[in-house]
Amino acid sequence: MASKEKVAIIGSGLIGQSWAMIFVSAGYRVQMYDNQPEKVITAIKSIVDQLNNLESKKLLRGNLSASEQAALISGATTMSEVLQDVFWVQECVFEDVALKQKVFKHIDSMLKCDPILCSSTSFIPPSQFMGHIRHRSSALVNHPVNPPYFAPLTELVPSPWTKPEIVSRAKAILTEVGQKPIVVKKEVPGFIINRIQDAIFAEAYRLIEDDVVSVEDLDAVMSEGLGMRYAFTGPWETAHLNANGMTEYFEKYAQGIFDVQSTFKPVKKMEGPTAEKIIEAMNKKVPMETLNERRKWRDEMMIKLSQIKKSSQ
Amino acid sequence: MASKEKVAIIGSGLIGQSWAMIFVSAGYRVQMYDNQPEKVITAIKSIVDQLNNLESKKLLRGNLSASEQAALISGATTMSEVLQDVFWVQECVFEDVALKQKVFKHIDSMLKCDPILCSSTSFIPPSQFMGHIRHRSSALVNHPVNPPYFAPLTELVPSPWTKPEIVSRAKAILTEVGQKPIVVKKEVPGFIINRIQDAIFAEAYRLIEDDVVSVEDLDAVMSEGLGMRYAFTGPWETAHLNANGMTEYFEKYAQGIFDVQSTFKPVKKMEGPTAEKIIEAMNKKVPMETLNERRKWRDEMMIKLSQIKKSSQ
Repeated sequence: MASKEKVAIIGSGLIGQSWAMIFVSAGYRVQMYDNQPEKVITAIKSIVDQLNNLESKKLLRGNLSASEQAALISGATTMSEVLQDVFWVQECVFEDVALKQKVFKHIDSMLKCDPILCSSTSFIPPSQFMGHIRHRSSALVNHPVNPPYFAPLTELVPSPWTKPEIVSRAKAILTEVGQKPIVVKKEVPGFIINRIQDAIFAEAYRLIEDDVVSVEDLDAVMSEGLGMRYAFTGPWETAHLNANGMTEYFEKYAQGIFDVQSTFKPVKKMEGPTAEKIIEAMNKKVPMETLNERRKWRDEMMIKLSQIKKSSQ
Repeated sequence: MASKEKVAIIGSGLIGQSWAMIFVSAGYRVQMYDNQPEKVITAIKSIVDQLNNLESKKLLRGNLSASEQAALISGATTMSEVLQDVFWVQECVFEDVALKQKVFKHIDSMLKCDPILCSSTSFIPPSQFMGHIRHRSSALVNHPVNPPYFAPLTELVPSPWTKPEIVSRAKAILTEVGQKPIVVKKEVPGFIINRIQDAIFAEAYRLIEDDVVSVEDLDAVMSEGLGMRYAFTGPWETAHLNANGMTEYFEKYAQGIFDVQSTFKPVKKMEGPTAEKIIEAMNKKVPMETLNERRKWRDEMMIKLSQIKKSSQ
């Protein structure tokens, strides 16, 4: 089998491991680097275990076997090694702006080719750590939804210096490896994924604080109701289908929605007794020692969901 | 087969049909009434078609066959007939407060037994149309998510006069028929389902208005990302699993979330050029003549999702 170009993963944590698995699923060679080399060894071992486990459950992505995919992954002991002949760099280090600045400067100084440079940051604006490098026109944020292997969405956030053709190329490659990239046209705090999530948190928190609903029942509103629609159609298409089209939806409901929205109280930082109440309910529902088991269940459910979605296309 | 008690459905539209299908799936007898009797005939025909179609796709709810379920449904030509020996009344007329007041007064005056009285209203506070009747202590809102047959969530909203044991009994019966009832402890505008949905609309609309993202990409944030998690875990449990538990989640992210939330702009009524842009995008994605086909796809996907969720319990 002729393997494809080489992807460099900088940082060997869970997000780095996920990106590695996504790229090898489509036949790309992946090399992983971490400033603590022993972590790379552990990470690759974990990836191979995950690939084998997914294969045994018929949940593996792509057309290659687990062993074929595993054979595409290697570790690098130096930054210059991982960056050699690379066509895509995916940075996956901790969410710290000074660290990202340092890592991107380091990458930039070592590069002898001109790959697409991506950061996995979930919220740090690209202009804050991508503007000071020579290769800034090839750099952008590529932020996945957790867990990335199971939810295909990823948001591309160009900086003011990113060339439009880099965004298009990144979009095409991510689509090829089975992700669903969207483009955030302007830098906004939280990008899109977190802004939508935080809008939900804002109201969910107020409803718990005002004792309108229990923590468990609030979660069920999503998992047994709205979320079962949103797994297939976004908010606009859901509305389009619920009424006889979007025009009728706005005619019938825009005023009522605005009236409800006008009763939203100011946002509050999630701390104190209400936060404690939520912590208590969650620790009761999914005790700490069962978190991993529950995550595995969630991941398996999500890939089965992907399979039923694919089967209908 | 010994059939269970009788449910009265008042109103023969899509929500009335869904409730009929849900109750017969669990073996209850259902009688349907509409002030336009010919509509009852059409509705029952439509229900039988839907049951047969679901059975042929192995998507039928419950343990009875489609024909056994169909045999449990009949029409009534008068209000007094439909209310005879009934144990549950589900009102499903148009969303109009004066009409609901009239219908509940009518039901109240004809009743010769003491059933649970439910309204399917999605937003009219129960105190506005359930306070003036003799049976008000047995009356409450039972608002499903659309499409009710495929999303089990339903919100129970007691009025100030509803007896707590009626709420408990309604909850038990709805659980028995396969729904997932939650309790809204106090009357709030939009109840819970619409408040969460409207919080999403508020931010989704602002992001389109500010041209941060396209309409299609905004929808993908849900359907290819957040929604695929929310189909299994609500916002709190999602956070609990994403971090090493809820305590760590709040410690790590509460400040960042609050900072993002603090940038939310005021809510806007969805009308004018931005609304037009959304209408245009939706009419392009799902043209009006294909709405029904797309709804059928969505319903089928949702019931397959229910099946994978059930298989893991």
